[in-house]
Amino acid sequence: MALKTLTSTPILFLLLLLLLLLLGFSAASTPRPHPRPCKRMVLYFHDILYNGYNSHNATSAIVGSPAWGDRVTLAGQNHFGNVVVFDDPITVDNNLHSPAVGRAQGFYLYDKKEIFTAWVGFSFVFNSTQHKGSINFAGADPLMNKTREISVIGGTGDFFMTRGVATLMTDAFEGEVYFRLRVDINLYECW
Amino acid sequence: MALKTLTSTPILFLLLLLLLLLLGFSAASTPRPHPRPCKRMVLYFHDILYNGYNSHNATSAIVGSPAWGDRVTLAGQNHFGNVVVFDDPITVDNNLHSPAVGRAQGFYLYDKKEIFTAWVGFSFVFNSTQHKGSINFAGADPLMNKTREISVIGGTGDFFMTRGVATLMTDAFEGEVYFRLRVDINLYECW
Amino acid sequence: MALKTLTSTPILFLLLLLLLLLLGFSAASTPRPHPRPCKRMVLYFHDILYNGYNSHNATSAIVGSPAWGDRVTLAGQNHFGNVVVFDDPITVDNNLHSPAVGRAQGFYLYDKKEIFTAWVGFSFVFNSTQHKGSINFAGADPLMNKTREISVIGGTGDFFMTRGVATLMTDAFEGEVYFRLRVDINLYECW
Repeated sequence: MALKTLTSTPILFLLLLLLLLLLGFSAASTPRPHPRPCKRMVLYFHDILYNGYNSHNATSAIVGSPAWGDRVTLAGQNHFGNVVVFDDPITVDNNLHSPAVGRAQGFYLYDKKEIFTAWVGFSFVFNSTQHKGSINFAGADPLMNKTREISVIGGTGDFFMTRGVATLMTDAFEGEVYFRLRVDINLYECW
Repeated sequence: MALKTLTSTPILFLLLLLLLLLLGFSAASTPRPHPRPCKRMVLYFHDILYNGYNSHNATSAIVGSPAWGDRVTLAGQNHFGNVVVFDDPITVDNNLHSPAVGRAQGFYLYDKKEIFTAWVGFSFVFNSTQHKGSINFAGADPLMNKTREISVIGGTGDFFMTRGVATLMTDAFEGEVYFRLRVDINLYECW
Repeated sequence: MALKTLTSTPILFLLLLLLLLLLGFSAASTPRPHPRPCKRMVLYFHDILYNGYNSHNATSAIVGSPAWGDRVTLAGQNHFGNVVVFDDPITVDNNLHSPAVGRAQGFYLYDKKEIFTAWVGFSFVFNSTQHKGSINFAGADPLMNKTREISVIGGTGDFFMTRGVATLMTDAFEGEVYFRLRVDINLYECW
């Protein structure tokens, strides 16, 4: 019995210590290695801005502008202060005419005088056999950069309580009326 | 001693393996069963939209509109592009005249031409003996649906760092001036 | 062997039970003690509102207003309904002329008729040797309070997937054109 105590009890103590340390570290929220995504999606969405002549197929409209702007033409100074509301089709490839698998709904606003830069708040809303629910996004979109990252701040339905990071890429644009964004979604919390 | 090692060590190893597997799975963020809410609340809030004649009791106002709209009447095309800022009383029952237990503050915007659909960003702000702090919400609100879910994206005070899902239901409305929302809040992270 | 089993196995069972309880509690998302921050930052940002005469150095502009307002002067009724887009320099001290370490970009809106209160959605965008990435914020800002808390709802780059709480303090203001906010950021999730 004495020998047994000497060999087995220390192992138990070490194990308990290890357990408490691991739990303690996670409770103290110290840095951890980046996790692997639990879900990845690549999707495209397509924005056609109302310009006074395209009400039949426009998917977005200027709803706020600075004192020097209006709501039909994007304002000078790199559109600083323009607020745009959108309801854009989401497709699985880069073709505007592919069947929409959901809608990107929300707003973006241009927020810098010197270069094009935006801030976005929007949702991907799905209601198909493949996905039901929504993914909510927010963050800065410095749209002159080839890639830029925004936050996945939550989700509902199939995307219950999710979090993650989405990488935006401007896949194409035509003047100031059409642009297409590629969105690489990496979710790190799945339920 | 030899016998002891044979029986006790494997159990320790298995236990350690189990522990590491469990911690490993949580680190890898693989799907998990939905958790139970750690807090539930059912509240109502009441929105009275400024229409040019009701400044004495209006709790919200149109602050953005598309080119075809103004800021006193909700725009055509299902109010697409209208942005509304609000400061609405929160009550524990569905009576507008019940004492307010907090304020719902933020904005909603209509974002679809074909049907009524909105996107919301707002906070529940509490400063009573019962609750102090705020709960922050964001998400798509397809308001023609009987129920729709948005994300609880954070909180402060009593709701420090909370996350969750809120279910919105239109409890009543009168024309375009008054509506009442029922909000079932399910929080899954409590501190 | 019989004795050994009596003494060692119960300890293993207790340990396993403790482990499962701890993991079970965290899975059930029951209340936990507040964690310690894994990162703290104190920063300042500076907002100069466009008033019709200061386009050379204005960093923000009114882009939405209620029916009784315009986009050059903040509206009556405590600016209720004014939406402001900003691109403000971030500094490490309270001097507007210190080198900017990043930009605060997004919007705030005034949302109460009786007193000054705002709702904010913005990002701190860093691109320096010290920090690369962004921190995203949202929440109610009852700006007449000495301190008020908003949520850190996500982050990218160096602030990958972060969450937390930020405390805002009005450090200085000059009329309705300039204000300086001190932001104490407490992050509780770091990677």
